[in-house]
Parts: sequence; C-alpha cells; structure tokens
Amino acid sequence: MFEEKIILRIPGPTPIPPRVQQAMTRPMIGHRSGQFSKILSDVAEKIKPVFGTTQQVYVLAGSGTSALEMSVVNTLQAGDEAIVTISGAFGERFAKICERYNIIVHRLEVAWGEAITPELLQDFLTQHPMAKAVFATYCETSSGVLNPIPELSQVVKTHSNALFIVDAVSCLGAVPCEMDEWGLDIVVTGSQKAFMLPTGLAFIAVSEQAWKRIEQITPQAFYLDLKAYRKSMAEQTTPYTPAVSLVFGLEEVVAMLEEEGLPQVFARHELMKEMTRAAMRALGLPLMTDDVYASPTVTSVDPGDLFDAEELRKILRTKYNVIIAGGQQHVKGKIFRIGHMGYCDPQDMLTVIALIEIALKQIGYEITLGAGVCAAQEVLIQHG
Amino acid sequence: MFEEKIILRIPGPTPIPPRVQQAMTRPMIGHRSGQFSKILSDVAEKIKPVFGTTQQVYVLAGSGTSALEMSVVNTLQAGDEAIVTISGAFGERFAKICERYNIIVHRLEVAWGEAITPELLQDFLTQHPMAKAVFATYCETSSGVLNPIPELSQVVKTHSNALFIVDAVSCLGAVPCEMDEWGLDIVVTGSQKAFMLPTGLAFIAVSEQAWKRIEQITPQAFYLDLKAYRKSMAEQTTPYTPAVSLVFGLEEVVAMLEEEGLPQVFARHELMKEMTRAAMRALGLPLMTDDVYASPTVTSVDPGDLFDAEELRKILRTKYNVIIAGGQQHVKGKIFRIGHMGYCDPQDMLTVIALIEIALKQIGYEITLGAGVCAAQEVLIQHG
Repeated sequence: MFEEKIILRIPGPTPIPPRVQQAMTRPMIGHRSGQFSKILSDVAEKIKPVFGTTQQVYVLAGSGTSALEMSVVNTLQAGDEAIVTISGAFGERFAKICERYNIIVHRLEVAWGEAITPELLQDFLTQHPMAKAVFATYCETSSGVLNPIPELSQVVKTHSNALFIVDAVSCLGAVPCEMDEWGLDIVVTGSQKAFMLPTGLAFIAVSEQAWKRIEQITPQAFYLDLKAYRKSMAEQTTPYTPAVSLVFGLEEVVAMLEEEGLPQVFARHELMKEMTRAAMRALGLPLMTDDVYASPTVTSVDPGDLFDAEELRKILRTKYNVIIAGGQQHVKGKIFRIGHMGYCDPQDMLTVIALIEIALKQIGYEITLGAGVCAAQEVLIQHG
Repeated sequence: MFEEKIILRIPGPTPIPPRVQQAMTRPMIGHRSGQFSKILSDVAEKIKPVFGTTQQVYVLAGSGTSALEMSVVNTLQAGDEAIVTISGAFGERFAKICERYNIIVHRLEVAWGEAITPELLQDFLTQHPMAKAVFATYCETSSGVLNPIPELSQVVKTHSNALFIVDAVSCLGAVPCEMDEWGLDIVVTGSQKAFMLPTGLAFIAVSEQAWKRIEQITPQAFYLDLKAYRKSMAEQTTPYTPAVSLVFGLEEVVAMLEEEGLPQVFARHELMKEMTRAAMRALGLPLMTDDVYASPTVTSVDPGDLFDAEELRKILRTKYNVIIAGGQQHVKGKIFRIGHMGYCDPQDMLTVIALIEIALKQIGYEITLGAGVCAAQEVLIQHG
C-alpha cells in the first residue's frame, strides 16, 4: 500500500486535482500587485454563476466558520431576534455564533437526518414575527440532508421581512444555487468541499437587501467587517492579506468548472449520490436520510445494531487506505458518512463501494460480495 | 525574460522554497485525522523556539490581522484603556482594531522611521496608569524600524500591570524573540514573511499572565475566541477547519529553520541588512531609519527630491522582473522598501542591488555603476 495514495471520501476536505495543485505552486507574487488584482477580480467574477448571483463574491482567508460569523456579525446586533433552523451540527454552530453576540435565538430544530420543511418554517415565522434574520444550512454535513432552500426562501420572503442567510459550505459548486432568483440574502461557502481546494478560503455573497442592513451597522468585528471587503474589492484588492496561493488554485478551479459546465457538474454529483444510495440499499444498510432530502455531496448510513461503524472505518483506513467520515456529536461512533463531492467521479464510487463490501465481510457482517457494486453499476449504466 | 521568474524583494509575501512548495502538494488528508493531529502538534511544538516560549503556539487560518484582532478581543473589553505605540501603518492598525471594540486608546506616536524608545514609553505609562495593555510592533513593516521590544517590555513590567502585546508579523523567524525571558504576554505573526510560506496562516502565543485575563472575558468573537483554540489544542486539533496544505508546508519550514539553526538564520538576516544599507549609502541614497533601529528584514529608502521612487520601481518591475515595495499611507509614492527576509540570502542581495543601480541610471539619476554592489561585497567578504 502506498501510504500517500489515500482514498479520501469524507465530506471535506476533498482531494485536490493535480492541475490545481500545480497552480498553487506558482512562484509567490505580491498581494498588492496589479497581477494579483487581476487574478482576484477575474476569479471573483467567474465564481458568480456558482452562487447564481450578479452580486460581488468576497474571498476571505479563513475557514467556513469565519464566513458564517461574518454573516452574523454584519447583519445583526445584540438584542436582535433571529431564527436559526437546525438539522444538525452546522445549524447548531450558527446558533452558537449568534448567542456569542447576544442575539436572541429562536431554534427551529428537527432530528438529524430530517429536513427543515417550508411548513415548519412558516409556522415558526408566525410565532416569531420579530426575527430580523433566518439562518439555514443548505447541506447539513453532519447528516447528509439537503434542506429545500428555494422553498424555505419563498416562505421567508412571503411571511416576513427577515434576511435569509444560507450556509452552503458543503454543497456549493455541487448543487444548483440561484441566489438572486431564489431571493437568498447571504450565501457562504468554503474552499475545501466541492471547490476542490485545500482548506483556508471562505466565500461570501451578499444581496442588495442585506447590504441595506449592513450599512446601518458598525460590526463588533474588524477582520470580518464586510464593508471593508466591499471597499477593497471596488479597488480589486482585499482589506487584509489574502491567501495568495489558494487564489492561484481557485483560478484553476473556476476554469475546471467552466470546462465541465455547471449542469454537468451537478449531474455528476447527483449520479454519485444515486450510486451510493443504491449500493447501500442493496447491502441492506439503513440510510439516514430520505431520498427527497438526500444531499448529492454526502451520504450518511446509520447501521444501528447491525455492526460497529467505527470498526468498519478502522478496517477501511488501516487495510485499504480509504477514509470515510464518522458521526459528530450525539451520533459520534454510531454512523458513517461517505463523501462524494469535488474531484470525485462515478468510477471512484465503484471503488469505495467495493472496499466497503470487503471491510463489512471482515468485521463479520454478512453480505453478498458485489451486491452493492452491482446496484451502483446499474445506476451508472442507466445514466448512459 | 521569464515572466514567472520574479525577483520578489518585498517585505512579504516572500518567495517559497521549492521543498516547502512540494510539501504543500501532498495529497489532502482529513483535518480530524490522527495523521493531521500528529503534524499539527509536532509543528506547534517545534515552532516554540522561534517565539522563545514554552507556551503553546496556536495556528490560525487567517491573515496576520486576524491574529492581531485575536490579541485585542480576548484581553480587553469595551471601556478598558490601552496604550498603542505607533511607529507606522501597523501600529495604527492595532489602534483601529481597539477602537472598533470601543476600547479607550492612548496613542504613543513617533514619526515614521523613528522607533518607540523606552524613555518615551515610561513617560507615557505614567500619564496613563489605567492602561490594561500596551501594544507594540516589533518590526514596523511600513518604515523598516525594529522597535526595542525587550527594553519596552521591561518598562511595561516595571511600571505597570499591563499586558504587553507584540505584533511580530514582519520579523519573527528572522530576529531573536525571547517571549518568556523578555516577559511578552502575546506574540503574533503570519506565515508569509520570515516563515517562507504563502499567506493564509497566523500564529499566536500567549503567556500565563495573559491567560488569567483571557479566562475572565467572554470575547465578542467566535472564530477568534482563544479559549476555543486552547481547548482544541489540548486534544491536538483546531476548533475550526485549519488550512491543511499550509500546515504541510509549515512542517517543512520548521525543519529548514532547525537545519540552518536559529542563530545562523538571524545572522543571515543581519548580514543582508548590512549589505543593503552599505550599498544604499555608497549610492548616496538616504536611509529612512537609523542604524540602531534598522530591521534585518526590510530597508526603507527615502529619495526625497533626488528621483521618483515610483519610476524606479516601475523600471525594476517591467524591465528586470524585480519587485520592491513602495510606501504606504502618507509616504505612498515617495519611498521604496527592499525586503530581505525568509528564503533569501546574501547572493540575492547582490542581484537586487546591481539591478537597482541599472534602474537608477535609466531613470537618469547619476551614480557610479557598481558602487553599491562593491560596498555590499565588502560587507559580505568581511563577514567571512
């Protein structure tokens, strides 16, 4: 086994394409140079279709959480009310950030594996008419649920004046996002998921309505002050030192997305999801999410008492160099999650399914070898 | 001219050594894996001598400014008083961050090119006895001044109970720093200067005395909450997604610093400074800082009415692919700055000096070709 030949199938970070790796090794340049300004404004422009917006997209040196915090601290102040929809660990993070800033949080929570429905949100909005913002998670990474963002947005826009703020970290670039058309006010994502980059960059796009609110607030933040980023981007630069080599990589990523075409990128992720789910079903493994709300980027499996998810992960890791994710928080040690996003294709799914089958056998769980692979093959063949 | 063969002589970002570049192209791994935990705790340990501390050093995905803000928001609260010593643009940044958090700022300012002296600070401390923190800039990048941090620290410790917080972004790893011995409470730096990495990582080390203050405060911050980093580092991890590929590079950087030896690293920077200053003097170009306070990492030259600094920079950039820095704020367009830190050696200094000479000739400023080079050669020969 080649130690560095890792089969990385977690929901981020995801594998880096060789041409992106290569771009990141370009010799360093000054971040205040015209050369860097050109690259920055070019990628910021080309990334807009991924968000489905004509608004400026801002690039931040930081993790996804830094941009989530940016969306909170620039739009709300202490004492303001907000609705946070929570379908897993990352919805909970939004709530924690709000609470740190003494924002009054109304939690709309569903069990892990379930989605926030428009009906639930509409009810909740009626109960909390003072909410100035509604926070939602597009793909809840911890459960593999894809929340119905366009429908939720419509509910928010129809029944309130609240801003609708979306964490799209673990799916943007893998699923459709029409920020402007759907009426989303802020969309946040990170570099290490469907964007095929290393960790370290975050992205945030902001609607005109959100800017109206932001302009009225002096945020209790300096590095995360959105107005500073807007002012700098008008001059094709950043207020603080950007992560130059990651932006070199991003230039290559937007080229790759353009070449493949966004509809094809989305279809590839949809196909990988279908293959994975068909395989798990064929092996008799319980999926954590319903088909309707299953994310094209990550699939969660909850084996319950069938076998030990951690034992499976350990065999995969130590014997076959396959890294799949475990559970977080209260499902830690209980579930496993297969990431299928970014630099990943249907062929890769066949590999990981075949190896999961072998590992299941080896931990003593009875399956028919090849049953999962066969189901996935059929999905692939049908796809043509 | 090879377009990508840039001679990057600005005070950050600095050139990346090939072996560091190569390390950063290692295939991505999960940031919650044992493998990453091992690398993280290993580099965090090996980086301690650079800070001169036995305290934990925390690694943050963000620019230097994010860590400067971290040092403010975790130690002070609205209404607290602080002294900010300002010898240039980055001292001013500390003041702005404090003011954003409604901290009462007492500015101790000197002209650009001058240093904050212990006498000045002692006087100022007497005038502002309620200050809970004193902020200082080790190397003021905008002028090339190296402030006398050990002496300033002694004054703070002798005459107050204030915390002493140091921005060492543009010199740490190039000059001695004995955080524990000198009594520094917080030391902050970034990855893109003497650390020879791309931009995107920041570092912060914290004294026990500072922790006592930090423990009493719930910071108005989430991503920059130091206690979250301490809690996570105790488990060999980070609270939010770290910049994995940059940490791969950091592993190589600490190896390089170990191999060369810190005293030799510091001597190399000292030598590059001496060569640069001798050359500028031999060419009759006015240095912006006194020898006593000149930084080993960056040299500022203020040509006054002798010639147009921007014209010089333009010729260097367009004809010879040499990038030197201009001035910031009120000296923008008036001065130029030569960076000599990180992956840079005396041989490189001869190149940049020779090319500056040619460019001076070409903008019509009369010098004797070779005079600067010769002065630098003599310094190098004397050094043995």
